[in-house]
Amino acid sequence: MTKRAVVLHSGGMDSSTLIYWAMQEGFEVFALSVFYGQRHRRELSSACEVAYKAGVNYKQINLSSLSYFLAGSALTSTDVPVPEGLYDEESMKATVVPNRNMILFSIAGGYADSIDATTIMGAQHAGDHAVYPDCRPDFMYATRYALSLATEGRVFLDAPFVHFDKSRIAGIARSLEVPLELTWSCYKGGDVHCGRCGTCTERIEAIWNAGFRDPTEYEPGTYAATLKLLREAGKLRR
Amino acid sequence: MTKRAVVLHSGGMDSSTLIYWAMQEGFEVFALSVFYGQRHRRELSSACEVAYKAGVNYKQINLSSLSYFLAGSALTSTDVPVPEGLYDEESMKATVVPNRNMILFSIAGGYADSIDATTIMGAQHAGDHAVYPDCRPDFMYATRYALSLATEGRVFLDAPFVHFDKSRIAGIARSLEVPLELTWSCYKGGDVHCGRCGTCTERIEAIWNAGFRDPTEYEPGTYAATLKLLREAGKLRR
Repeated sequence: MTKRAVVLHSGGMDSSTLIYWAMQEGFEVFALSVFYGQRHRRELSSACEVAYKAGVNYKQINLSSLSYFLAGSALTSTDVPVPEGLYDEESMKATVVPNRNMILFSIAGGYADSIDATTIMGAQHAGDHAVYPDCRPDFMYATRYALSLATEGRVFLDAPFVHFDKSRIAGIARSLEVPLELTWSCYKGGDVHCGRCGTCTERIEAIWNAGFRDPTEYEPGTYAATLKLLREAGKLRR
Repeated sequence: MTKRAVVLHSGGMDSSTLIYWAMQEGFEVFALSVFYGQRHRRELSSACEVAYKAGVNYKQINLSSLSYFLAGSALTSTDVPVPEGLYDEESMKATVVPNRNMILFSIAGGYADSIDATTIMGAQHAGDHAVYPDCRPDFMYATRYALSLATEGRVFLDAPFVHFDKSRIAGIARSLEVPLELTWSCYKGGDVHCGRCGTCTERIEAIWNAGFRDPTEYEPGTYAATLKLLREAGKLRR
């Protein structure tokens, strides 16, 4: 029997790349998106398009009631503005959803155990470590251990990008021919990427530093402006 | 400021007792019930009644979509019969919901962090260790550690009954004057406790062994029959 993996899939660059990574590793992939009330609901249709293009199994689960319980984040509350420009620790903190990754991993773990998948995968990476404690390696290892106990060793949590930076993931995306133009990063949730918010800025930086042409459609004029900002901040490698 | 605790509350004897325990420990209690598609939905109205009687904050969260993802359990699927009589490992296994407690703890953890509660509490006890791996102390400790990392030490998972058997919890319920007649254990989800299913049998045994009159309304004739079964199995201490 082919080994199965549940891949947590936001529709962004990182988790889309992870789907292709898992396929290359020989897994039958079951991509899973969770709607937890995020304002950037737009990412879910991107998630579906990427899964369809990749030819993997795909499910969305609607847990929007969670948004009433996980308060105070710019990602779920319209009271809190989405931060723009370069992410610093302070502005990124507005995008913390309390305990989000533990919730996502536990649901993916239950789903995996239901379909006899042996692995769940998340695309957390080093760029998120400073602000999001639930993206850090020590949290991953602790959660892996808890999940292993809860499932009596049947389900393993893997986070293969946890020590990579985002430009390395962009490079992997390029080599695995991930359809990056279908993926969605922007927290603003408009028709095209805003090109200005924190995640757009990170996306532009990562793809630029990976050294290939950015296939993303940004709001007119924003790409050059954000690149300039990144260059002035010393973030660009070429 | 009063310290706050989120108590996971099923409406059963154990978690209802835990609410009173937490109150006695000086916590401002926020009881939380999760509807994950369990057939015994009846327990949720009991949960509300107990919380109201105790005078604590109470919320229910509807995550019924989860039932499509956590397959194969008698508790969420009408295809699988609820086991009757004395629980043995085999029959209890039909009531395992994949990774349920990790999901519940992670949601409680996010909720706790949102309302500045420092503690989440679950009523897992020793009677469940054999069959439910996500009720065992090692799972509790691993999840406590993962939650502590995810919240940077702000939220602590406590399971004060994890080494107690159910009759000890019944004794605590008695001494804390928990309104046991309002609590709900039966997995069948009828109007009164069926008196025959695995959890009814456990409830009858626990209250009998704690040595006080059982205030539960069971289906006529079942209480005596189940006691007889328990006595023949050598489960009764008096």
